[in-house]
Order: sequence, then C-alpha cells, then structure tokens
Amino acid sequence: MSIQKPKGTQDLLPGVVEKWQYIEEKARDVCRRFNYREIRTPIFEHTELFQRGVGETTDIVEKEMYTFQDKGDRSMSLRPEGTAGVVRAYVENKLYGEPDVNKLYYIGPMFRYEQPQAGRYRQFHQFGIEAIGSVDPSLDAEVIALGYLFYKEIGLKDVRVEINSVGNPACRTVYRDELRKFFAPVKEKLCKDCQSRYDRNPMRILDCKKDQEYGVGAPSILDYLDEECSTHFAKVQRHLTDMGIAFVVNPRMVRGLDYYTHTAFEYKAAGIGAIDTISGGGRYNGLVGTIGGGGVDQPGVGFGLGLERVLLVLEAQGVDVPGVRPLDVYVIGMGEAAENEAAKLLFELRSAGLTAEKDYLSRKMKAQMKSADRFSARYTAIIGEDELARGSVTLKSMATGEQEEVPLASVAETVKAKLDR
Amino acid sequence: MSIQKPKGTQDLLPGVVEKWQYIEEKARDVCRRFNYREIRTPIFEHTELFQRGVGETTDIVEKEMYTFQDKGDRSMSLRPEGTAGVVRAYVENKLYGEPDVNKLYYIGPMFRYEQPQAGRYRQFHQFGIEAIGSVDPSLDAEVIALGYLFYKEIGLKDVRVEINSVGNPACRTVYRDELRKFFAPVKEKLCKDCQSRYDRNPMRILDCKKDQEYGVGAPSILDYLDEECSTHFAKVQRHLTDMGIAFVVNPRMVRGLDYYTHTAFEYKAAGIGAIDTISGGGRYNGLVGTIGGGGVDQPGVGFGLGLERVLLVLEAQGVDVPGVRPLDVYVIGMGEAAENEAAKLLFELRSAGLTAEKDYLSRKMKAQMKSADRFSARYTAIIGEDELARGSVTLKSMATGEQEEVPLASVAETVKAKLDR
Repeated sequence: MSIQKPKGTQDLLPGVVEKWQYIEEKARDVCRRFNYREIRTPIFEHTELFQRGVGETTDIVEKEMYTFQDKGDRSMSLRPEGTAGVVRAYVENKLYGEPDVNKLYYIGPMFRYEQPQAGRYRQFHQFGIEAIGSVDPSLDAEVIALGYLFYKEIGLKDVRVEINSVGNPACRTVYRDELRKFFAPVKEKLCKDCQSRYDRNPMRILDCKKDQEYGVGAPSILDYLDEECSTHFAKVQRHLTDMGIAFVVNPRMVRGLDYYTHTAFEYKAAGIGAIDTISGGGRYNGLVGTIGGGGVDQPGVGFGLGLERVLLVLEAQGVDVPGVRPLDVYVIGMGEAAENEAAKLLFELRSAGLTAEKDYLSRKMKAQMKSADRFSARYTAIIGEDELARGSVTLKSMATGEQEEVPLASVAETVKAKLDR
Repeated sequence: MSIQKPKGTQDLLPGVVEKWQYIEEKARDVCRRFNYREIRTPIFEHTELFQRGVGETTDIVEKEMYTFQDKGDRSMSLRPEGTAGVVRAYVENKLYGEPDVNKLYYIGPMFRYEQPQAGRYRQFHQFGIEAIGSVDPSLDAEVIALGYLFYKEIGLKDVRVEINSVGNPACRTVYRDELRKFFAPVKEKLCKDCQSRYDRNPMRILDCKKDQEYGVGAPSILDYLDEECSTHFAKVQRHLTDMGIAFVVNPRMVRGLDYYTHTAFEYKAAGIGAIDTISGGGRYNGLVGTIGGGGVDQPGVGFGLGLERVLLVLEAQGVDVPGVRPLDVYVIGMGEAAENEAAKLLFELRSAGLTAEKDYLSRKMKAQMKSADRFSARYTAIIGEDELARGSVTLKSMATGEQEEVPLASVAETVKAKLDR
C-alpha cells in the first residue's frame, strides 16, 4: 500500500511551484522597497502564546489548532497564524530597544484543522507584515499601500480597499452599549452565533451574513470615535488619497480579531463570487502588551494574507503568472566518448551560469531532441563523432533551426552572447 | 510573564535572516542551472511514511520525531528529513509517468527532538536534491557536482569530496559476512552500539569514532563489488575527474542511512574541528519501491544538507556573506504639510522600485539624519518650507555630502540615474 499525503495538505509540484516562487519573490521585492525586513519564527510555539495572542475563546484556538505534548511534556501548537509569533519574537529579542520602528515581514506555512474545501487547506501559507513601535497614521496608510501594491503588481485586477476605524477601547465601550440598545428589540430573532455575540462583542453582529436585515439603521462606530481616534482616521484617509489609492469607508467592517484598534481594513477583488474579501489587517495597539506581559507595550499595525487565496483569485481572473524558465542549452553526445564530453561540457555551461541539461536514459538522438523541446531549450549542442574529433559542437537554435560549429571551449561564451542579443 | 520560543528553536531576525536569504538564493540559482525544480511537500506526514522511508529502528524514528495524533486520530509526525516526503509525492503524483528524469530540490524546516547544542536545533533547515528515474552514473556525478558548486559559490573554502561505493544488496551481503568474520575476535571489545551493529549492519562499525583501532586492516567493500557495481563506480569517478572536482575514495565511509546503494558521498570542510563532515548523500535504488509499495520502483540519487551547518562553517572560516542592502533614499519632511508631501513622495519612490524610508516617530531633523545613517541611506530627500513652496526637494548624497534641488516629480528618475552610474 502506498502512503498518501495528509488530508487537507498539498504537494506543490514543478509546474505549479513556479507560481508560488513568483508571488513570493514579488512579496519580497515589495517589502524591500518599503524597507520591511524578514523575520522567521518557529513553526510551532508554546500553546499559551496563541491562547494569549489570538484569544482563548476564538474558533482558531478552541477548535482548529494542531496541539500536542512534546517529549518534555510541554503543550505545543503548530502556528495557526503569523502575528503572535512575530510579536513574541519582538518582545523576547527586545527589538523595542532599537531606535527605529520595527518593520517586519514573514512568509510561511500556517496550520488549522478545518474542513478542507476549495482554496482552504489544513496547511496554508501566509505573507504578512507587522510594523511595531509607532502610532503615526502614515504607517497605517503605508501598510495598506504595501498590500495594495503587492496585489497590483502580481496582476490582480480591480482590487478595492475598504477601511474603517474601530476606535480605541474607551470609545468602543460606549459604542457597544449603543449597539446592544439597538439590537435589544430583535435579539431573539438573531442567529444563534449573534445571540452570543450580543453580550461578548455586538460589533460582530454587523458582520454577520445571516443577520444583515437587522443591522439596517444601526448606529455607526464613526459617530462614537473620540477626537484622537477621528483625527487618526482622517489622517490615514488623507495619506491614502495622497498616494492615489482609492478606498471606501465601510463603518460596518469589523475584522474577526478582537485586538484591533483604530484602523481596520480589507482588500476585495472581483471574479471570485460573493465572498470578495481577499485579506485584511489593522492596527493593534494593545497586543504587544498582552503577549509581552512584562510591561512592554508598543503599538503595531499589519496584515496577513493567504497565498492560496491569491493564486485562486489570479486563476479566477485569468491572470497569467510567469511559469517555468526555458532551458538555455540541451547537450547531446552520440556514443560513449562523446557522452563523456557532453557531461563535461554540461558542467562548464552550468558553472558559467547557464541553465543546461542532457539525457540520462541512454535515449536515441530523436528522443533527446524531443526532450529538449519539452524543456523549451533555446539551443542544442550536439557532439557527434566528427565534432568530437575536431573538439567542437554543432550549436543549433531551436527557434530558427540555424546551425553552426563552435569550439568546445567557447560554447558557454557563444550561447551567452546569443542570449544577450 | 512573557512567553519564550520553544527550546531548541530559533528566531531568525533581520541582520541574520539576510544570510539565510543569500544562501537560499544561491541554492535556488545553482538548482536552476542544473535544471532541478522545486518541490514542496507538507510539514507533517503520516508517521508510517517515516517508519518506512527512514527506517523503524533508526534513532530518528525511534526517539527523535515529533509525533502526535491529529483531531481525526491519525498518527502524524513533523518531517525529520526531506527525502521521504519527496519520494512519497513522486509516487502519489505519478511523476514516474513523465518522460524525463525527475530532478527535484527542496528547502525547508525539518524537526528532530534532540538535545540542542551549537549548530543543532530541534527545528533545523535543509536544502536537498533528489534525482529519480535513472541509473546513469553521470547523474551521481551531477548530484555531487551540484552540492560542490553550491558550497564553492557561497564562499566555503577547502571543500573536499569523499566518495565510496556501498554496492548493491547482493555484494553487500557477501561483504557483511566477511566483516563479521573480521570483527568476530574483537566483538566483546567493541562499544555497546557496535556490538549491536555487528549483527544488524557491521559496515557501520567502520564508521564508529570509538572503535577506529579495531577497524584497522578490515576488508574493503571495494574488493567485494560485482562487475555492475565497479563499472558504475568507475564511471562516477571518471565524470568527477572530467569536471575537475577533486575527490578521495574512502572505502570506510558508510552513510548513516541503510537505503543507499552504489554511490555514497560526503562533503568535508576545514576550520570546524574534528567532525569535518558537512553533509552527504548517495544513491538509493530501492527506496522508491519501499515507500511506494504499489509496484513502482525507480532508482534515485540525492543529498540533503543542513543550512545551520553551512552558516556555522562560513562563520568559522571567516567568510563574509552579503548582509542588508542599503537604503536608496530616506525622505525627510519638516512640518506637517511637508511631512504629508514626504509620505506621498515615499510611495512614488517605492512604486518606482527604489528602497525608501522615512521617520514615523515625529523625530527632529538631526535624529532623522541619524536614522538615515543607520539604514546606510545613499541619498536623503529633504522637503523644508522653501522646497515645499517650490514643489521640490533637496537631494543630498550621503557619501559625498553634495546637494542639489530637484523637482518633486523627478526625484525617482534622478536617483535612479545616479544609482545606475
């Protein structure tokens, strides 16, 4: 019996993996330009980190984590998201002692035990950024702009930005009371989830797909922001406008995570059905203190976006992503002596930076030419008996069919000159 | 209380992570040239895969795996090495149906519960390649050459290659019997591990650090190779010689894994003490069949090398690895109106591909210039009241101190032209 991959996981094979490489390279490039630097935190962490950082009563922590006891009997969990680990590393490594704002990005696998479905996997992958150490609204705008530029540059069409302010804990307390008053008359009619949200966090009722009708006419958070919060929000909008990033203010947008303060935002795209949100993020001015525990408190803002979703949307929109690079040279030797020479030439071409390949299956000339075609080789370098005797190769352009004889020692140089043209 | 990272894991922070990026980019580039393509398999697999693919009686599987039951009560393990997953994916995705040899590489985290020590972590990282589908000895030589070129190009000094042939199962059976005869008189004097190796796999006694003295004069595997095995080994050596890769034949070299056939090899480097082996690999002609189980059997050859070890050796040898890239432009706005303009310019510069940064902490001019220095900025673009009125910036070269006034709209273009020079 052969063994299968675990349910809800993927093998990313050649042909598909190049799309991932392309997207990740673009993410890294955009981060470089915005001066975000990579951070890599462990794949698993102490379970307590996610209880504190994501929230003990969230679905993620209650139901979806891969939790296990290690051989030292410590409870560990595969990371279900990226922010908690980054913030833990920020505190543990005392990055708050640095004079500049910490602008960090991560790309990597995350794990949630959910029912697998189209575009949703138990091992999935996120690209996220976290800017920690400043309350400057231009930083909120920068974070939004970075994600926007990333989506735009990988070719996603019609990306829209929605923003909101969820205020600070003080104005949110007042607003929540107003919301409870508003929903009180219809409380019994709300869905079961929303009835429990009514006490815990009535803002999430506005977000519920089922109870849209009951939310019509609900008070807006924007009317309850204090001066600091509304000034912050106005400045974020001003910066986005200056940067030419179109956005819509959506006062009903409440991100799933309770730790957001001030700015919350989402990216939306067309072509993927009713749930058009592709990712989001926000400001989290209390989270570092919650995770740090030891008196360290620093404001932060960031986003996390799923790469599976990016690929799904690209495909739905029919966007072409660069695939496999063609081969520069396919080397063919006819007969054992020439084959040895071919293997030697191959290593020279590769050492010189060219992408080069040969046959390893003792196939006939015709089959080797077919193989060169499958690899989209630009040139074949053929060593037959005559060429071997003269210390040369026949170099053939696969596009034009043109051939010329080139000394063995100058094949690399000749091909490079032709490719540069 | 603040939460710490799990014991034996690392946070790779900015300043260090750039070394990792450099090494990984080099690995990817060398693989591209050799026409190896990336494969990504899941971080965890069914435990049975490693029992079959690594071996049920190995230390790795018996003592060192992170094994847990998932919520569906299936036994899963974090991957302790890379080959088993790749071979599983090869079989499951029927890659053997492709007309060409599958040449695959992987880079990623692996997990073993071991006592942490210098350069050894519970989450560690490997770069490996697997070429599956051919018995051609030029493929063994290619695999060895790829690793060699990788080490050389990242700047490792004095890398040596040792090779051996461990034959096929038939000649190995004969050889093992001869070895048992040789060691029989001293069996009681061998270390405890070797006494148990005596029956299971006496070849590993040759490898033991403690029992070197008893191995003197032991028969050599090379005298027991059948014709197919010695021809294969001779051809591998011929190809390595042709490629100019110096190597030593070490008939006592036995890699830790029992599945190797024919070629086994190790890379060694100076400057890291007595244990100078930095990595190794070999041919595994039976492994695909063992893992596949369903009648698929294909020969393979590959290596896996630890990136932590690469970094340790680079450091021990005093090799400089490229670090953080300098910033292209640091933008400074004096006063709120100019700051808004600065944020806008910043986004323009980044959209144009430049690495650009500003202050987010409302610091004074002098502190901002210091920040620009910390980021090794090549230029500062200063917008004061005068510049704002004229719609321009003062562009200052941090290397020469030279200043010039440039219209806001052409800052990106001007800086790019200067950097190209």
